[in-house]
Amino acid sequence: MKITGTSVRDIRFPTAKEKDGSDALNLGNYSATYVTLETDGGLKGYGLTFTNGDGNEACVLAAKAYLERVKGQTLEGILSDLRGFYHKLAQDPMLRWVGPEKGIVHMALGAVVNAVWDLWARREKKPLWKLLADLTPEQIVAAIDFTWITDALTPEEALAILKKHAPGKAKREEEMRKNGYPAYTTSTGWLGYTDEKVKRLCREAKAQGWRHFKMKVGQDLEANLKRAALIRGEIGDDCWLMMDANQCWDVAEAIRQTKALAKFNPWWMEEPTSPDDALGHAAIAKAVAPIAVATGEACQNRVVFKQFLQAGGLSILQLDSCRVGGVNEVLSIMLMAAKFGVRVCPHAGGVGLCEYVQHLAIFGYIAVDPDLTDRVCEYVDHLHEHFVEPVKIINGRFYAAPTAPGYSIEMKAASLDEYEFPQGKAWKE
Amino acid sequence: MKITGTSVRDIRFPTAKEKDGSDALNLGNYSATYVTLETDGGLKGYGLTFTNGDGNEACVLAAKAYLERVKGQTLEGILSDLRGFYHKLAQDPMLRWVGPEKGIVHMALGAVVNAVWDLWARREKKPLWKLLADLTPEQIVAAIDFTWITDALTPEEALAILKKHAPGKAKREEEMRKNGYPAYTTSTGWLGYTDEKVKRLCREAKAQGWRHFKMKVGQDLEANLKRAALIRGEIGDDCWLMMDANQCWDVAEAIRQTKALAKFNPWWMEEPTSPDDALGHAAIAKAVAPIAVATGEACQNRVVFKQFLQAGGLSILQLDSCRVGGVNEVLSIMLMAAKFGVRVCPHAGGVGLCEYVQHLAIFGYIAVDPDLTDRVCEYVDHLHEHFVEPVKIINGRFYAAPTAPGYSIEMKAASLDEYEFPQGKAWKE
Repeated sequence: MKITGTSVRDIRFPTAKEKDGSDALNLGNYSATYVTLETDGGLKGYGLTFTNGDGNEACVLAAKAYLERVKGQTLEGILSDLRGFYHKLAQDPMLRWVGPEKGIVHMALGAVVNAVWDLWARREKKPLWKLLADLTPEQIVAAIDFTWITDALTPEEALAILKKHAPGKAKREEEMRKNGYPAYTTSTGWLGYTDEKVKRLCREAKAQGWRHFKMKVGQDLEANLKRAALIRGEIGDDCWLMMDANQCWDVAEAIRQTKALAKFNPWWMEEPTSPDDALGHAAIAKAVAPIAVATGEACQNRVVFKQFLQAGGLSILQLDSCRVGGVNEVLSIMLMAAKFGVRVCPHAGGVGLCEYVQHLAIFGYIAVDPDLTDRVCEYVDHLHEHFVEPVKIINGRFYAAPTAPGYSIEMKAASLDEYEFPQGKAWKE
Repeated sequence: MKITGTSVRDIRFPTAKEKDGSDALNLGNYSATYVTLETDGGLKGYGLTFTNGDGNEACVLAAKAYLERVKGQTLEGILSDLRGFYHKLAQDPMLRWVGPEKGIVHMALGAVVNAVWDLWARREKKPLWKLLADLTPEQIVAAIDFTWITDALTPEEALAILKKHAPGKAKREEEMRKNGYPAYTTSTGWLGYTDEKVKRLCREAKAQGWRHFKMKVGQDLEANLKRAALIRGEIGDDCWLMMDANQCWDVAEAIRQTKALAKFNPWWMEEPTSPDDALGHAAIAKAVAPIAVATGEACQNRVVFKQFLQAGGLSILQLDSCRVGGVNEVLSIMLMAAKFGVRVCPHAGGVGLCEYVQHLAIFGYIAVDPDLTDRVCEYVDHLHEHFVEPVKIINGRFYAAPTAPGYSIEMKAASLDEYEFPQGKAWKE
């Protein structure tokens, strides 16, 4: 099966005006660099990376550069050396200068690599999580680029983790199909929402069955205390409250504010400072324990995650599905987390991130870290209507295991046309 | 003085075919995202960021996004709050998602910010180094964004460093004007060159007056040993030899190869592993001492440099002038290095990097770190002919202090036309 054609589109949703997704530092139009692979067999593969409006046009060009390198390859050729396929793209002798493996170029790579996995899963007629769960430990390890991380995880160690958990996979798969994977909601706590809106959303979400609520905090401690009191008051003491600072503090300020907010019993403080700062997070984690430190949605690659794990900079690893280089790199990060005994609670929201991470969370439980204690996958109730196979929440607060073949990231043709930037109807008006 | 117009051009030189700039992982066409600011006063400002061919097109788009935000501002307004000017761009609520402050988006910001400094220096009719040297300690500190680094350097500490070195500035300026700033050469040791070519280049360079020679090493230890023997044999024991691995090893391999190469008495091992890996570099530095560990050309921002300094991951800081966010961020990195007592030996080569860093090195000596012991600034003998005010090497191996107003980064109109990608004559043929 040869990849005979590729395309990439700039898709943007005008979310800024409603302040959906607003936090301490980010406010934009939820966007996607949307990639399609066409094959001579007629089958297509889809992938995207999520951005926040401006900048998506640069990401589209970076994706084009990778797609030029992928076009003409056969799926069989790629699958015969998945590690080499990833490494060659990630370390391309020209493109690596504007990375390496970080920022726009790496996010674009994530879209392209995920499209290949989507194509493979569709060919196998399996949802991605099932494709991954059915791979042998050796096949998983052969997909991982261990460059720069062997001081933290060797191929042999990765293999041992996967082999250890091979027994029981069938039972856990059955459990996932029946119960789904536990989720938490971020939809209730955007910083730009009014108090009244937040109260109403919390009440509705609790009635729906949610038990874990994330709120945004910002630079103003008084405002944070007030909002935390409001939300804790609304959800009660029997629910979990998580706080997300979205990188808005320096190290000392993060410690000061987290300690002041401790009286509302947050489970974790998320992104207290720069996502690049493993040592800063380690200092914060030490100072604010037993409150957990969570981060990952803006961690650029496996090398940064490695240092967070080595330094004790996080105890909740919030894996992102397309900021890093797609499924191949995700696998290395999940396995490092397992080795260091750190919980993975994937990041979602935006455009398509829920659709993506449900697969990763379910596969993780089946094959990498067979424990659901204090594991929850983020859920945000936005933009799912644009996907051909949108996520489904069951039992009040669980991601239903997807059943359709692929990575669930194909968008509806009508949505693509309407929201393509700048020529779509949504942007012309 | 109002910024009334902006433009950005994709400039590429076909260097790959001669293997100029070839190393263990990089081989490309030296390129620039070239920015021009036009003002209602008729004065123009120029800036560029260096890339390696493919990917430059995405960088151009990112620069456009920043230029849209700069257009219409006045130079006076920018100068009244240089810190705020930088911060607002670097933390733009949309563009930060595809960073923050890393990769393509940050490199593009470097070009734009540097163009503003070039404009300012031209208005003052001073070379950039002199503009900087004449600023008060308070003015320098007011240009720096301390976000995320106050656990390593506070504004007060930065001010104290600058004030401490204020006496003697005039004398050091005179010294720089007379002698220039010491340089080392990288032109002799590209990995793709033949043995014969390397031997000839070493002989010629030594005859010209060079005393510090950098060679590239790669993944093949036998080849590295052979090449090191050749170069050490050619330059003799009275010269300094530096080695550059360009990120090609994992931590354990870096230690193994550096120890094996120790018999050729290298001064430093450069980029032994991932540029993101502060902890990995610290482990290497500890294991290979007294050989120094050098890195920085691919370090994405001040937060990563902060961790390298905190962890002991480098003892030679190879500042880049446009991978980080231009002069504003460079100042914070130079001051952190001074606080930690680490030598700055700026990275150069590529397109325009020598033109840029001569200003930073000279300013650093005058105002931040008044010591020339074991300080050398990189020099590569390529592409200077395309600049209106190219670097000049004097006394065999010293950068002459520039005298023309600005940041020396304006390119010749004919060169821009000929090498613009893809429509320039050089690419059409």
